[in-house]
Amino acid sequence: MDITPSAKAKDYLDRLTVFMDEHVYPAEAVYQQQHRDAADNWAIPPIIEELKEKARAAGLWNLFLPDPELGAGLSVLDYAPMAEVTGRSPIAPDVFNCNAPDSGNMETLWLYGTEAQKKAWLEPLLNGHIRSAFLMTEPDVASSDATNIQCEMRRDGDDYVINGRKWWSSGAGDPRCAIFIVMGKTDPAAPVHTQQTMILVPANTPGVKIERYVPVFGYDDAPHGHMEITLKDVRVPASNILLGEGRGFEIAQGRLGPGRIHHCMRSIGMAERALELMCDRLLSREAFGKAIGMHSVWEERIANARVQIEMTRLLCLKAAWMMGAVGNKAAKDEIAMIKIAAPAMATRIIDDAIQAFGGAGMSDDTPLAWMYAMQRSLRLADGPDEVHRRSLARSEFKRASQCLGIDIRSIRQ
Amino acid sequence: MDITPSAKAKDYLDRLTVFMDEHVYPAEAVYQQQHRDAADNWAIPPIIEELKEKARAAGLWNLFLPDPELGAGLSVLDYAPMAEVTGRSPIAPDVFNCNAPDSGNMETLWLYGTEAQKKAWLEPLLNGHIRSAFLMTEPDVASSDATNIQCEMRRDGDDYVINGRKWWSSGAGDPRCAIFIVMGKTDPAAPVHTQQTMILVPANTPGVKIERYVPVFGYDDAPHGHMEITLKDVRVPASNILLGEGRGFEIAQGRLGPGRIHHCMRSIGMAERALELMCDRLLSREAFGKAIGMHSVWEERIANARVQIEMTRLLCLKAAWMMGAVGNKAAKDEIAMIKIAAPAMATRIIDDAIQAFGGAGMSDDTPLAWMYAMQRSLRLADGPDEVHRRSLARSEFKRASQCLGIDIRSIRQ
Amino acid sequence: MDITPSAKAKDYLDRLTVFMDEHVYPAEAVYQQQHRDAADNWAIPPIIEELKEKARAAGLWNLFLPDPELGAGLSVLDYAPMAEVTGRSPIAPDVFNCNAPDSGNMETLWLYGTEAQKKAWLEPLLNGHIRSAFLMTEPDVASSDATNIQCEMRRDGDDYVINGRKWWSSGAGDPRCAIFIVMGKTDPAAPVHTQQTMILVPANTPGVKIERYVPVFGYDDAPHGHMEITLKDVRVPASNILLGEGRGFEIAQGRLGPGRIHHCMRSIGMAERALELMCDRLLSREAFGKAIGMHSVWEERIANARVQIEMTRLLCLKAAWMMGAVGNKAAKDEIAMIKIAAPAMATRIIDDAIQAFGGAGMSDDTPLAWMYAMQRSLRLADGPDEVHRRSLARSEFKRASQCLGIDIRSIRQ
Amino acid sequence: MDITPSAKAKDYLDRLTVFMDEHVYPAEAVYQQQHRDAADNWAIPPIIEELKEKARAAGLWNLFLPDPELGAGLSVLDYAPMAEVTGRSPIAPDVFNCNAPDSGNMETLWLYGTEAQKKAWLEPLLNGHIRSAFLMTEPDVASSDATNIQCEMRRDGDDYVINGRKWWSSGAGDPRCAIFIVMGKTDPAAPVHTQQTMILVPANTPGVKIERYVPVFGYDDAPHGHMEITLKDVRVPASNILLGEGRGFEIAQGRLGPGRIHHCMRSIGMAERALELMCDRLLSREAFGKAIGMHSVWEERIANARVQIEMTRLLCLKAAWMMGAVGNKAAKDEIAMIKIAAPAMATRIIDDAIQAFGGAGMSDDTPLAWMYAMQRSLRLADGPDEVHRRSLARSEFKRASQCLGIDIRSIRQ
Repeated sequence: MDITPSAKAKDYLDRLTVFMDEHVYPAEAVYQQQHRDAADNWAIPPIIEELKEKARAAGLWNLFLPDPELGAGLSVLDYAPMAEVTGRSPIAPDVFNCNAPDSGNMETLWLYGTEAQKKAWLEPLLNGHIRSAFLMTEPDVASSDATNIQCEMRRDGDDYVINGRKWWSSGAGDPRCAIFIVMGKTDPAAPVHTQQTMILVPANTPGVKIERYVPVFGYDDAPHGHMEITLKDVRVPASNILLGEGRGFEIAQGRLGPGRIHHCMRSIGMAERALELMCDRLLSREAFGKAIGMHSVWEERIANARVQIEMTRLLCLKAAWMMGAVGNKAAKDEIAMIKIAAPAMATRIIDDAIQAFGGAGMSDDTPLAWMYAMQRSLRLADGPDEVHRRSLARSEFKRASQCLGIDIRSIRQ
Repeated sequence: MDITPSAKAKDYLDRLTVFMDEHVYPAEAVYQQQHRDAADNWAIPPIIEELKEKARAAGLWNLFLPDPELGAGLSVLDYAPMAEVTGRSPIAPDVFNCNAPDSGNMETLWLYGTEAQKKAWLEPLLNGHIRSAFLMTEPDVASSDATNIQCEMRRDGDDYVINGRKWWSSGAGDPRCAIFIVMGKTDPAAPVHTQQTMILVPANTPGVKIERYVPVFGYDDAPHGHMEITLKDVRVPASNILLGEGRGFEIAQGRLGPGRIHHCMRSIGMAERALELMCDRLLSREAFGKAIGMHSVWEERIANARVQIEMTRLLCLKAAWMMGAVGNKAAKDEIAMIKIAAPAMATRIIDDAIQAFGGAGMSDDTPLAWMYAMQRSLRLADGPDEVHRRSLARSEFKRASQCLGIDIRSIRQ
Repeated sequence: MDITPSAKAKDYLDRLTVFMDEHVYPAEAVYQQQHRDAADNWAIPPIIEELKEKARAAGLWNLFLPDPELGAGLSVLDYAPMAEVTGRSPIAPDVFNCNAPDSGNMETLWLYGTEAQKKAWLEPLLNGHIRSAFLMTEPDVASSDATNIQCEMRRDGDDYVINGRKWWSSGAGDPRCAIFIVMGKTDPAAPVHTQQTMILVPANTPGVKIERYVPVFGYDDAPHGHMEITLKDVRVPASNILLGEGRGFEIAQGRLGPGRIHHCMRSIGMAERALELMCDRLLSREAFGKAIGMHSVWEERIANARVQIEMTRLLCLKAAWMMGAVGNKAAKDEIAMIKIAAPAMATRIIDDAIQAFGGAGMSDDTPLAWMYAMQRSLRLADGPDEVHRRSLARSEFKRASQCLGIDIRSIRQ
Repeated sequence: MDITPSAKAKDYLDRLTVFMDEHVYPAEAVYQQQHRDAADNWAIPPIIEELKEKARAAGLWNLFLPDPELGAGLSVLDYAPMAEVTGRSPIAPDVFNCNAPDSGNMETLWLYGTEAQKKAWLEPLLNGHIRSAFLMTEPDVASSDATNIQCEMRRDGDDYVINGRKWWSSGAGDPRCAIFIVMGKTDPAAPVHTQQTMILVPANTPGVKIERYVPVFGYDDAPHGHMEITLKDVRVPASNILLGEGRGFEIAQGRLGPGRIHHCMRSIGMAERALELMCDRLLSREAFGKAIGMHSVWEERIANARVQIEMTRLLCLKAAWMMGAVGNKAAKDEIAMIKIAAPAMATRIIDDAIQAFGGAGMSDDTPLAWMYAMQRSLRLADGPDEVHRRSLARSEFKRASQCLGIDIRSIRQ
């Protein structure tokens, strides 16, 4: 296992780091101020588009896309440390055009889109002119079991007619959001893994209604937003289908791997930032006659944070390396592992950082409370912890039963 | 140790429980709707004043106050289960006129106020006509060490002139909030426990400026609000002092006990509500072929929740009983214990409940995320966990050193 | 809920405490030395019988038995604090003739024995002349599910013929152990709760074979011992049955309550002792320029230990109080709770104490490692944690389903 | 970072794995039986020497030693996975002549020994003819602070005269143990890091007395043993000094790195074995109508075990890789991290495995309880967790203070 970044990746990473120092961190306060001052809470603060221009000019653009012409042509492993760096700042992923869910949507279009689909949607997304959303989770069923999905997609001539209710459609609150990838059932009678289909639905299609934003611990996350959306007799041409009817599950699988690496590496970036903030605070305030950090109760937290960050990063890099070495499917256990490990690690560290800051930690004087909410949501997004633990445990049991020479199906469940 | 409620308390509790079922729980959604619909985010939803009228008419009013004429004349122990019940609903404490910080402020005025002070401020507070705030914590110093407080109170003729910056002044956002109790230093050169003084400052005194609300995670907690307030050359008559110059610490000590019981019992009420919601959800959704609750991973969480709630409640009731039996001072270790135990227990249970609900748990479709933020803040309010653990550990060491026959002061620190 | 001890209990407790200080703690080292020096590892160190004489002379004898003539006539609640005190020393329970499993066996005989059975076995047990064992757990099945038990009891004329294999038969290694209460199946075809029967089997009955001691971690727990025992065509008269055929489960239920209180209170006593030892150590050694306890990392552990001990004790006392107030059956949830809470709490605290002592903590220079092993075993004895959590969670779900107005049996399991 | 094993290492690892399957695992029960049957508890079961012959013949001998002639010539990184494999079986390290403390002692002699010292002690150690011990920890001081060491080494002519008391001298109980490396103070007045010296003391030198074995959770760990040893006027020639007077600390530093990698990788091997045993058990027993593993409460534990093992292994391999890439000194934080992470991870997993096995888990029917004791002891050996957390936290603070542009020495401690 060799996780040394390529020379090209090393160069990108160095330049990205410099760009963060010079342009992104100093812009965080500007962003906050512009957002606060805006008449419309859902408007994009102008600083974002300015930074995007700069990032693009600096060649720090679409770094996530493995395509060497459309993106930077980096492997998942090579891109991973850059995802970590962008995770350090709430505004960075947008600046470099590598924010979720757009990056995942772009990758999906790149992998599975027709030329026409690419022309219509991938191109403006890569240019950063539009944004996109991914409509999968539904409020009315336990999304932990993906077979529960109810959104109906009925063929009607050359069209599909879609009816359903989705929520946690992140980014759909963005005024620039123009296209949705929607997951639904085209054939509820089919075998469980071929019932579902992904289809492209322009945001302005009649019948699409954004009902509300769904807050996360009080945050509206404007102007990004996690939206609840109803689709009522929404009609799109059959040519909007991605890959083919009944192949939604297949795409979801293929899509998941890189997206999880990105998410988890950003979680690590956030944890590093929290640890950095925590150390600074502990050194700069005193209580009971010495710097707070010199009270050894904090040594335990700081040391555990460092250990946890290092271990989680290595696991993510291993998962990324495996995707390249043996493919996304063979790496599925490792991908489940980082999904379990990274947000849990980040929430613990951020929570300690909040404690170190006292009241300021819970307020918006630090990004910590928002980070906490964000990372806490990742223990539920893309399947709750319990589902990934179930899947991982079953892999272990399967391996164990093979060693024991028994058929796992003979075990009473 | 007898923690059986008195007959009178039992009767109040029964009536309170019925009132909650009949009036309060059904009003939660109304409150939310009115708050959402209000032009002014900081206006009080009308349902509150309606419910207050009903509660007062039902004799469920100022139950927290031990005074038999002004309040219900109940002991801390007798009132504790009622605090728990009111903690179950975010709107309940206000309805029964027993919300923090008003209840603590009323008790302070009742115990330490002059007749004139009582007439001016206690009476309208008891009537529910005005609200109050308590200005202690400061943004610029580590509040974990109370001796760090910097707010200056300078004697000038018959007045005091106050300069300082306070935050986390909860309730100061309420349009009805008319009076502040302010903690500051009258004599920085005095021995450490007589430097500080509490003084009454009407909210509309010139020089008082509410700078902003401080959010808790993403919640503004409007119309209650946790405010940052500057005091610039604020002048109040010396007669506004509570108890006497340099006696602020003494009041703080006396005030703390009952307030902590109330807070902790409300935490328990919230935890019970969270457990109730969690069980309901686990029984009403299915995944992988059975109700989610029937997956035994949830048994551990449910069982631990029940165990933790029961234990924490007993500890709170013991602390309350001790306050009556041996006095607040002798109960100080027990009061530290519940301050450590109750919010930590509640956050853990609420976090599990969030996990049970998935996305809905983090949103405002359930009260869980708000409850989490609220309880998390209580691990910092009135001193962070670390300070209470320090104090408790030192009690243990003191006891141990006595058994060993050594003088604790001879231990190298 | 009134958990104030009666005057009689208070008096016993005071005298017990004095006796512990004067006779028991100083004898611990003597016991260890005698045990080490003995030619036979399974011989009873003479100090034990000396102390028993003293305890009996002091009237501190059979305090656990509610019978006022045969025992002290104390309620479970009144006896509980005495169980705690005896739990502080590994040798104390034997000294006061209130050790498990004898106390439970005596209580069983007292409640369910015939006059002849009492004459033969209860009397010498109460006199401390013999010891007893309880043969329930079996090595070949998951004992977490009590219906799995396989030991066969076949009626043959006026006798029962018993075949089976038992283990963790604690106390059966004691040379004084003369009688076993054996649980087995008399009717495997009966409804699940009437299949099992308890029968008295003298230790010297032909066909009884003590195969070995089962170590707990590295401890043989000699001369007490947890034995593995085979019963091969063991024949006892039908008059040895307790209460009646098929009533084993019923006795097990009745027996469990008080025994669990005793066990859990002893766990608390052990935790207190560990905390005491830990504080002493932390004050008497220095590292990095101050007493180890003055490094604040220990404050967290000490404070949490105190909080956990207090809470667990209150829960145990509540469970004991409920047994008196509403009966063992109505107290079953509370009894499950303490079974989950007490050993888990004790292992955590003892583990911290071990850490405070360093190498000495794991050795036999302190009783800590043995305490750890002992308490760890209690997370498995009488049903593993998981079973009690399952039972408790199901109570919660039952209550929740009633509130929801649904029949719990309609939930898909 | 490239942690791919070299082709040579891959070959060794494959052969080692086969050897384990064919010879070592099947011999575990033989070892236990021989040990149980031996008249002398401290005799070496004959199977060990037989296996050593086979291992040596197979070329699986002294694999740990980087010297290509005396050992296998593997880097720390290349050897690490082999250490893991040997950690899976309690008897394996001895079989391959790579057990602690011998491997560390051999490495010390190889690095710092004179030719005469090597001839006398390294040669027979490499041949597996003798064993050795490392005498550092002392019972009378807090060993968490290495400067506390008291053992006196006084120069007297051409000799040194040693007086002191040591304990936890592992392996000194082995009848083959012939040589001790002793750490003590030659110059208490010197600067703190040059006070101490390491010297070779043959086990049979007059004045050396093995006082007793120190048990670990009841285990005597015979015939290895952790001994308490007094040195009374023990006289050895000055030529027995390693490296030079006052250079004990320097050697300790150099020695620590590889040893910690070995220890931690063995911890991982043990954790893997525990997980394997746990899965087997969960699949082969039923409760409440299905295999125990199918109760989802176990999914959480199994999944967390897998995640923790993977992460810890990666961290250990990174630390090993760093030692090669940047040297032991620059890798000191990583080495501290694995010392904190690995035994803690292993104890958690083993504890869960014990729970899965019930009573069998605590007994000697499985190796789990012994593994637990062993891993628990590693949270104290070579410095308790607290010391490594302290050191790691201080590195973080140092880095943070540099970023803040402040001198860490200006922080009030």
